[in-house]
Amino acid sequence: MEYDPDLNITLIGAGTIGLSFAAFHLSHTLSPSQLTIYDTRPNLKEYVLETLPKFYHGLPISLSFSKIRIAKSLQQAVSNAHIIQESGPENLQIKRDLWVEVEKHAPKEALLWSSTSGIPASQQAQDMTDKTRLLVVHPYNPPHIMPLLELVPAPSTSPQVIERTQEFWRARGRVPIHIKQETTGFVANRLAFALLREAIHLVDLGVVSVPELDKIVESSMGPRWAVAGPFKSYHAGGGVAGLEGFFKNIGGTVQECWDDAGRVNVGKNEGWEEKVLSQTRDVYEVVDTVERDRVMRRLLDVLDEERGRSREKEEGSSLLKSAPETKPSSD
Amino acid sequence: MEYDPDLNITLIGAGTIGLSFAAFHLSHTLSPSQLTIYDTRPNLKEYVLETLPKFYHGLPISLSFSKIRIAKSLQQAVSNAHIIQESGPENLQIKRDLWVEVEKHAPKEALLWSSTSGIPASQQAQDMTDKTRLLVVHPYNPPHIMPLLELVPAPSTSPQVIERTQEFWRARGRVPIHIKQETTGFVANRLAFALLREAIHLVDLGVVSVPELDKIVESSMGPRWAVAGPFKSYHAGGGVAGLEGFFKNIGGTVQECWDDAGRVNVGKNEGWEEKVLSQTRDVYEVVDTVERDRVMRRLLDVLDEERGRSREKEEGSSLLKSAPETKPSSD
Repeated sequence: MEYDPDLNITLIGAGTIGLSFAAFHLSHTLSPSQLTIYDTRPNLKEYVLETLPKFYHGLPISLSFSKIRIAKSLQQAVSNAHIIQESGPENLQIKRDLWVEVEKHAPKEALLWSSTSGIPASQQAQDMTDKTRLLVVHPYNPPHIMPLLELVPAPSTSPQVIERTQEFWRARGRVPIHIKQETTGFVANRLAFALLREAIHLVDLGVVSVPELDKIVESSMGPRWAVAGPFKSYHAGGGVAGLEGFFKNIGGTVQECWDDAGRVNVGKNEGWEEKVLSQTRDVYEVVDTVERDRVMRRLLDVLDEERGRSREKEEGSSLLKSAPETKPSSD
Repeated sequence: MEYDPDLNITLIGAGTIGLSFAAFHLSHTLSPSQLTIYDTRPNLKEYVLETLPKFYHGLPISLSFSKIRIAKSLQQAVSNAHIIQESGPENLQIKRDLWVEVEKHAPKEALLWSSTSGIPASQQAQDMTDKTRLLVVHPYNPPHIMPLLELVPAPSTSPQVIERTQEFWRARGRVPIHIKQETTGFVANRLAFALLREAIHLVDLGVVSVPELDKIVESSMGPRWAVAGPFKSYHAGGGVAGLEGFFKNIGGTVQECWDDAGRVNVGKNEGWEEKVLSQTRDVYEVVDTVERDRVMRRLLDVLDEERGRSREKEEGSSLLKSAPETKPSSD
């Protein structure tokens, strides 16, 4: 996708996710010609101008700010948009009604995206006339930093819409992954929650404390999986026999862990809650996410650089070939 | 712990783990005065001299190599050791017999460590006279790069032994975590295997492919958890309401994912295997772990630097305070 001088993006919902998307679009070399923001909150303009700079961490932003348009109505917000992304409340009825209204006023070719972390596109689209244009584009928070976008279409979403959506994000150096079924929680959260459940279980048993568990993850699978995902990692762990070798060597322990996890009560009873919640509160108080995001950005920069390097070295068969193509100019 | 000019470390077992530990010790500013390696394989000396340099990736190693002693017998290997770590075959009887022999010939004060990923110290120590000195010191592979060490004592292990072991690793910039129960798979593997199970399940369902799943993890929770573990991350995700706020906001989805995971058949039937194994094999062939380890080391260097910086800034209450103190001189 070439840089399009006439690209209008509309964001509905100016919460944390919406404004983080705004920061991403405005700071990218392929920024839209116009970024429209719509939200029902009072004093929207003041709020946006005050809040948006927090996502920039001191970068120069005066130029890109001129592209922002604050819409006074939904109709005005969507009437000339090429892309419309909603990051509103997680409420099915609100989203259903929203898309009916959007459909009335938006251009026919506009792409319709929902940031929802849980409400499938097929349910959101139920009252629409044309159900082919809507899909979930679920970011990993915060989207102005994290590369992942889970694209979760409904069965009614057209393949062209999925393709155009992938193309848009790939051109911007992001990692859009097409999720083939409307699974509960999609994929990233499901994976993370599976680990979280086991983590809660181990803290509840007293095997480790909350900060010890965090340190374990930060010193082992965190950095490992930033570089190579679980399948690639265990495939490497099996030597020349690959993943199969890994299961031959250590499959017994894996199975024992899984059997043990099958007996986990987390989610069935509430006993764990006070222990885990109070430890977390006591140890971390309020986390400085600006600091966290700055460090995460540094790591992602290193990974971007390495992926660029390995792509140059041997196009198509390198360790890190599954890579973003470019990165935001603000990084 | 000050640099001890008279520190003799003995490594039993010269496989990948043993030699990776050797590389770590020899490349550290607090390197031992003598590093003894013992293994029953033939031509051990040639093998070690040939294989060890692979762990260094081109660093100058001539100096530290002079500290290596190849032992001709177990008795010779342990007789003047301060620390003895075994990284031998994962076989209970072999380990039991080994520790009985070690006990006969090693100094009384020597620390006895096992690298096992699955055989508890209490079982390994069963035939020993003094069961207070043995504990599991389980690395996250490869130990010359990854900071985590899971210290898993038996109920019979003395608190002093645990403390001395923690002190040893902390002084070397590593992250030794005391695991309070001899849980199956300890903690790191249990957490990773919980996620792996869900990953296999999603690939088996056809929701995503193996490389797509890896990309999802590499672009989201990998870099996130390298910087802040799951509890800290979700605590931040809940805003000022912390982890409790997180569960209030999204607890419904979390519970639905957990309920869904409860129906997972992975491990109960074998149907998933061919699908997952063949996809992994086809996509990744043989992973270049030298390249992977080099990139991981760069990420860990960034994290080390940031932790040092945040420690300077506000001792004791910073985002990244749970940090290694120093790092190997080879980094």
